[in-house]
Amino acid sequence: MRTLTLQRVRFTMGLPPLKRAIQEQAEKTKNFVSRSLVVGEVLSVADMATGVKCGIIYWLFGGAVRNLGSPAHVTKWLQPLQEQKYTGMFAMTERAHGSNVRGIQTEATFDLSAQEFVIDTPCENAEKMYIGNSMYGNYAAVFAQLILNGTSQGPHCFIVPIRDENGNLYPGVTAIDMMHKEGLHGVDNGILRFDKVRIPRENLLDKFGSVAPDGQYHSPIEDRGARFNAMLAALTPSRLAVTFQAMGSMKLGLTIAIRYSHSRRQFGPKAMEEVKIIEHQTQTLRLMPHLATALALTFVSRYAGVLLDEDIFCGKELVNSRSLQALVAGLKAYSTWENVSCLQDCRECTGGMGYMMENRISGLKCDTDVFVTFEGDNVVMLQVVVRELLAQYTRQYEKRPLSSLLRNWAESGGDKLRTSVLAFNVDTVGSLAFLLKAVNFRERVLQRGLVARIYYKVMTKKEDFFSAWNSCLHHITCLSLAHIHRVTLEQFFLAVNSCPDPADRALLQKFCLLYGTKLVFQERAWYLEHKYFTPTASMRIRSQ
Amino acid sequence: MRTLTLQRVRFTMGLPPLKRAIQEQAEKTKNFVSRSLVVGEVLSVADMATGVKCGIIYWLFGGAVRNLGSPAHVTKWLQPLQEQKYTGMFAMTERAHGSNVRGIQTEATFDLSAQEFVIDTPCENAEKMYIGNSMYGNYAAVFAQLILNGTSQGPHCFIVPIRDENGNLYPGVTAIDMMHKEGLHGVDNGILRFDKVRIPRENLLDKFGSVAPDGQYHSPIEDRGARFNAMLAALTPSRLAVTFQAMGSMKLGLTIAIRYSHSRRQFGPKAMEEVKIIEHQTQTLRLMPHLATALALTFVSRYAGVLLDEDIFCGKELVNSRSLQALVAGLKAYSTWENVSCLQDCRECTGGMGYMMENRISGLKCDTDVFVTFEGDNVVMLQVVVRELLAQYTRQYEKRPLSSLLRNWAESGGDKLRTSVLAFNVDTVGSLAFLLKAVNFRERVLQRGLVARIYYKVMTKKEDFFSAWNSCLHHITCLSLAHIHRVTLEQFFLAVNSCPDPADRALLQKFCLLYGTKLVFQERAWYLEHKYFTPTASMRIRSQ
Repeated sequence: MRTLTLQRVRFTMGLPPLKRAIQEQAEKTKNFVSRSLVVGEVLSVADMATGVKCGIIYWLFGGAVRNLGSPAHVTKWLQPLQEQKYTGMFAMTERAHGSNVRGIQTEATFDLSAQEFVIDTPCENAEKMYIGNSMYGNYAAVFAQLILNGTSQGPHCFIVPIRDENGNLYPGVTAIDMMHKEGLHGVDNGILRFDKVRIPRENLLDKFGSVAPDGQYHSPIEDRGARFNAMLAALTPSRLAVTFQAMGSMKLGLTIAIRYSHSRRQFGPKAMEEVKIIEHQTQTLRLMPHLATALALTFVSRYAGVLLDEDIFCGKELVNSRSLQALVAGLKAYSTWENVSCLQDCRECTGGMGYMMENRISGLKCDTDVFVTFEGDNVVMLQVVVRELLAQYTRQYEKRPLSSLLRNWAESGGDKLRTSVLAFNVDTVGSLAFLLKAVNFRERVLQRGLVARIYYKVMTKKEDFFSAWNSCLHHITCLSLAHIHRVTLEQFFLAVNSCPDPADRALLQKFCLLYGTKLVFQERAWYLEHKYFTPTASMRIRSQ
Repeated sequence: MRTLTLQRVRFTMGLPPLKRAIQEQAEKTKNFVSRSLVVGEVLSVADMATGVKCGIIYWLFGGAVRNLGSPAHVTKWLQPLQEQKYTGMFAMTERAHGSNVRGIQTEATFDLSAQEFVIDTPCENAEKMYIGNSMYGNYAAVFAQLILNGTSQGPHCFIVPIRDENGNLYPGVTAIDMMHKEGLHGVDNGILRFDKVRIPRENLLDKFGSVAPDGQYHSPIEDRGARFNAMLAALTPSRLAVTFQAMGSMKLGLTIAIRYSHSRRQFGPKAMEEVKIIEHQTQTLRLMPHLATALALTFVSRYAGVLLDEDIFCGKELVNSRSLQALVAGLKAYSTWENVSCLQDCRECTGGMGYMMENRISGLKCDTDVFVTFEGDNVVMLQVVVRELLAQYTRQYEKRPLSSLLRNWAESGGDKLRTSVLAFNVDTVGSLAFLLKAVNFRERVLQRGLVARIYYKVMTKKEDFFSAWNSCLHHITCLSLAHIHRVTLEQFFLAVNSCPDPADRALLQKFCLLYGTKLVFQERAWYLEHKYFTPTASMRIRSQ
């Protein structure tokens, strides 16, 4: 399976669109992100393991060089990927630190006399784990604590040679196969261990932190936390790529399940032909909302791609686009969860056929199940959303102490809220305007409530920030999803309105309405609790 | 994998508890069902494929002989399973008919002169599909239309020899390997085709329908529909066995995930050790309700096992226990869905580790995913529940026309309802009595509403029953689950109260409360719509 995938990756990476994508990434050609996202989606539909492996090389390894390196690094490490002279991998996660990357323990100690970094794995917990392409790849983008004169400057990224062109490991490098997984059998995940591996000083990707020949550290970002965030922001495009892959998987699964439901017949009125199973009420109710969600995700993720392109084209650092960061992190979590739930329903709605590998749904399920974990665990992603939203908000009040910020945030919004709460009328339940208002209302109420709770815990009760945050985690995840739902519905709505073909527009409008109804319906208890609508209205939404 | 599973099955079936279980099934020893259900659960935890294959031999093949055959059949086909002289399979599902078994097309035509049945697959759609153990087994319990003088008497079950003891297929039998599935790789599922295979007249399992040497058909059940239902009732114990297997899988998954959450650390307060991930609010909120559900299922499924044992011990035909039928069908659907959702959370809560096969969760997921489909698709099972509930109710009014039955059912309950609706008090939200009342209320309201809707559609609007039923499918599934939830919570409550150890009882009580709260919380929108409690009370339940 792996050999086959390797061949597929070689073949694919040799195709003109892929070679062009690499060249465009190197040159930052206009809209290159959007174009390569779509290439990634198509690739994943064809074969998920190939899509994921190409993603490791292009988005993760290539993206690290692109977003963390200098122009010289791009010329040296990114452009040669076009000719497939070598392939790369991305080594961030360690045994003891997956979500909490800041705590990684791999060390990169600067040796002044040799002008080299010494990459070392000090203990078992520091081993790099789950590293994709680690059994074949030649170079790794390794995250390690940069140590100068015995003190760490925090995690930085280094290019470490792993294997020569004949596939022989370099001295000091150990790669251990992690073997069997639930899916993605074509992707080789392994453990990497470094025993004092020496690399030239130039192999530090130094956009956000460099070491001069005399051993002096320099960074354009003074604050350590901000610097670290700037580096993590490099993951933004690859996170969005996961959303495109999850979407591709949903669309394929739905196509298979819906087509099957139109051909399979079971049960029917007495003495008459059995009916198509899509005509069974439950079957339609299970599949159609997923189709609406897949459409909604298509528009919102394209929107995110366009924003990313605009920012990159304007030369903006990714870290400065707080709301975009939040959107992409949230979309990654939302889309991958929707994909899991969608494929599960596709599997169940196709019965025994759906359990057979030849019909692809169960294979897709197993392959994409890890999407909720990799490139950032979904629950952690949801926290990123809220943190970014908060950071975006507080930027307006820079340098002010946290207390006043929080108080301010907690108080604001009151007026804005009041206007929309009462704008409700029972007859409008079926209109998109009503649904848009409802999801907007929910986001703002949850946001205000969260700030008030954290403010109370931190300021009044003097809890430390970690435990205050932790005790609000459920609230945070709700807010986070509410934010993503709101943006997604808005983008779906805008896309429908700008659809040029009237017949298509009418059809999309129906699905947009279904999507909005699904969002409000699944949270109708919350709306009822907040008296946003009456029980009667809620029942109307149900029957809708 | 299959060879290994075959060895495991041989080894397991040779163990004294399994041999005893077969002997007990043959003799209908007191409580034999409960005992073998537990054996099945343990076996599945050890290895799911082995558990499922033993289940095919013991519950499906053995159960068909036991519940559809005569004492002579039991002696001939069931008892020799102890010595492993041969193994069996169960061939009901066909390509075109899985859920709608009544429509199967395999034919068993009686040849009077030869005193034989001719088993034949007339077309591709009549091929037996997904048949477990079909690549190794010796005998199959085959469901086919019994044809006498050119007319069908409906589906009956026949023992058809498939292979001799050396594994060679008998003439006229074709077995095609169905190959790769999402999981259960150790179980061989295949397609069976019969080309005019002749079997002795005695191979008809004739408890509910026999053919005399002169070709006369005789059945103790006059009505064809009732006769068919009596045969399907033979599946009841094996359905309950699936619930035990799903429970075993949940318990194992939860044990792994909760233990891991107590050892893995990630994030924490500044400059302090990272905290255990179980201390992250979201982790606890995701895992603990599943644990409560696994406990609840344990008690309710044992209860169902005891009822089954009592009925069988009293010599009662399974088909006459309408409420038990409903309970078992519903539990099969409920437990297998809970298992899917539980394992998904276990998988996600254990991150990348959960995706590795060596940690078993993802393997369990793939193996048990088909549980929602086999032994009766879950959505169909939920309809069985409601049909059985309705049938149970209407038995009291036998021979009366449907109209009066429905009207009667729709009108009843009104008084009973009124007493409990207003029994609500905000302070009691945390008490089990309140929760029990709430789930009771929900079941009754849904039931009354459904009958009223169907009555209106069929009687007033003159819709045919199929489309009236189909347009209420969502309502039916809700009622069905509400029924199962109510019974489950009640059984959990009773079990807690009869727990002899005070410390255990206190702990179980907490989980019982958590389980009840989960049930009411997830349906709080419905309760709010029905003004069963106020928004304030709903928020209290949320914080609980």
